[in-house]
Amino acid sequence: MKRTELVEQIFEKGTFLCVGLDPDIKKIPACIEGTPGERIATFCCAIADSTAPYCVAYKPNTAFFESLGAEGWEALAKVVNHIRTNHPQHFIIADAKRGDIGNTAALYARTFFETMDCDAVTLNPYMGLDSVEPFLKYEDKWSIVLALTSNPSATDFETVADHKGVPMYERVIRRSRHWGSPINMMYVVGATQAEHLAAIREVAPRHFFLVPGVGAQGGSLEEVAKAALIDECGLLVNSSRGIIYASTGEDYAEAAAKSASDLRNQMLALLQQYCAQ
Amino acid sequence: MKRTELVEQIFEKGTFLCVGLDPDIKKIPACIEGTPGERIATFCCAIADSTAPYCVAYKPNTAFFESLGAEGWEALAKVVNHIRTNHPQHFIIADAKRGDIGNTAALYARTFFETMDCDAVTLNPYMGLDSVEPFLKYEDKWSIVLALTSNPSATDFETVADHKGVPMYERVIRRSRHWGSPINMMYVVGATQAEHLAAIREVAPRHFFLVPGVGAQGGSLEEVAKAALIDECGLLVNSSRGIIYASTGEDYAEAAAKSASDLRNQMLALLQQYCAQ
Repeated sequence: MKRTELVEQIFEKGTFLCVGLDPDIKKIPACIEGTPGERIATFCCAIADSTAPYCVAYKPNTAFFESLGAEGWEALAKVVNHIRTNHPQHFIIADAKRGDIGNTAALYARTFFETMDCDAVTLNPYMGLDSVEPFLKYEDKWSIVLALTSNPSATDFETVADHKGVPMYERVIRRSRHWGSPINMMYVVGATQAEHLAAIREVAPRHFFLVPGVGAQGGSLEEVAKAALIDECGLLVNSSRGIIYASTGEDYAEAAAKSASDLRNQMLALLQQYCAQ
Repeated sequence: MKRTELVEQIFEKGTFLCVGLDPDIKKIPACIEGTPGERIATFCCAIADSTAPYCVAYKPNTAFFESLGAEGWEALAKVVNHIRTNHPQHFIIADAKRGDIGNTAALYARTFFETMDCDAVTLNPYMGLDSVEPFLKYEDKWSIVLALTSNPSATDFETVADHKGVPMYERVIRRSRHWGSPINMMYVVGATQAEHLAAIREVAPRHFFLVPGVGAQGGSLEEVAKAALIDECGLLVNSSRGIIYASTGEDYAEAAAKSASDLRNQMLALLQQYCAQ
């Protein structure tokens, strides 16, 4: 998907919500029947169908599928294909956090951009350019590079300053922002780090940020928007558990829609407040 | 597998070779028939059977399997199961370079240690302790953490020094070496960085290092051994392409065995030269 199309969707629908698909087999509503693979696929497809009006992106987390082995991968392919077919204007992010080099990275790119038709994949920058470059060769596909994450041990390495006082996450952005451009790269920036968001926005004024950690992990949507919204929006805010497990009863899809709709309404107000469009 | 068992195997067989299973569907010998998934599984199982006397470990690279989708994951499970059943004393490393946190990391651990019965998985440390801890909860299973890799862009972030002059890869080792211990953690250290290996050995005097980059990537086995062998060996040196694609004809398995056997003979001499056992 092109950046212009993504931005258009956001303003048309008044939302920059990304629904995180983390289908934990232990939490799938009991009313959904079938094999484990079938159950997580059915669950994710129903969530996608009910939340589609309120979001612009879906982010299946590969770990939840992989943990079921081949059957889980089949479910992942089914979910991606279902979204691509039924909600063709939605942006699909494989939250895979892959990070390898050369031929191996090229194969991961093939996996997510050819074998499956995702729009984007999350990548770990530790090994440098070599681990991102093969993904950038695909037109209209996106690399979403980890910068500053919302977990406590982000301080182990991500926030460590170099001899000039530049923290690693900032170095990652400064160095990688020219590998691609704002039309094919985004950054993961955790919402619990809202105090850093404004500073990061200075370093990457046009890039989209994929922001997890709003809701369950304690980040404030209002603070995130204030710190990082730009005229072309520039944000995809992800919510997973708060939406997909809003109910574990038979009304799980409606409850997810309600939860997504609430977030969409907040987002609409923020877009009107902070964006010129 | 316990460290004592791994060390015993190494000295009994006179080898610290790890055979990397990177089955590129485009390079599988034409004589192997079947679906793509069947072909890569057959190829890897045959390579494992022929090289078993000369190595102590196998390292399937998940990207090569994933690129075929669910069918590839089925092949990976088949290969891991084949090795576990037919070569129960071999150490199995899932070269997956996963790096995520909390519940997601726990699911990756479940994938490789429960859904599949691997001994170890390679991990990316960027997000800190949170991305390694869930793997360390499994007894006799190993986390192999990326430290210094052999690719050119390792200089983008891995070798960047902090305000005290400590490069990131060294910080990764210093900080993580107490998360687990030498009985459940190893480090990935590239062979093309032999000049750094001796210094890294000082920082982690007892840990095993998984060393890629010997052969195709230009590292010297002799230099690696000289810099990092310890009394309990402490090295697993990986070779992938040099072994598995030694021939693309019908004799591919025998050619792989010959190539592995040559490396094993060099390793035996090095073990005798540098190790007290």
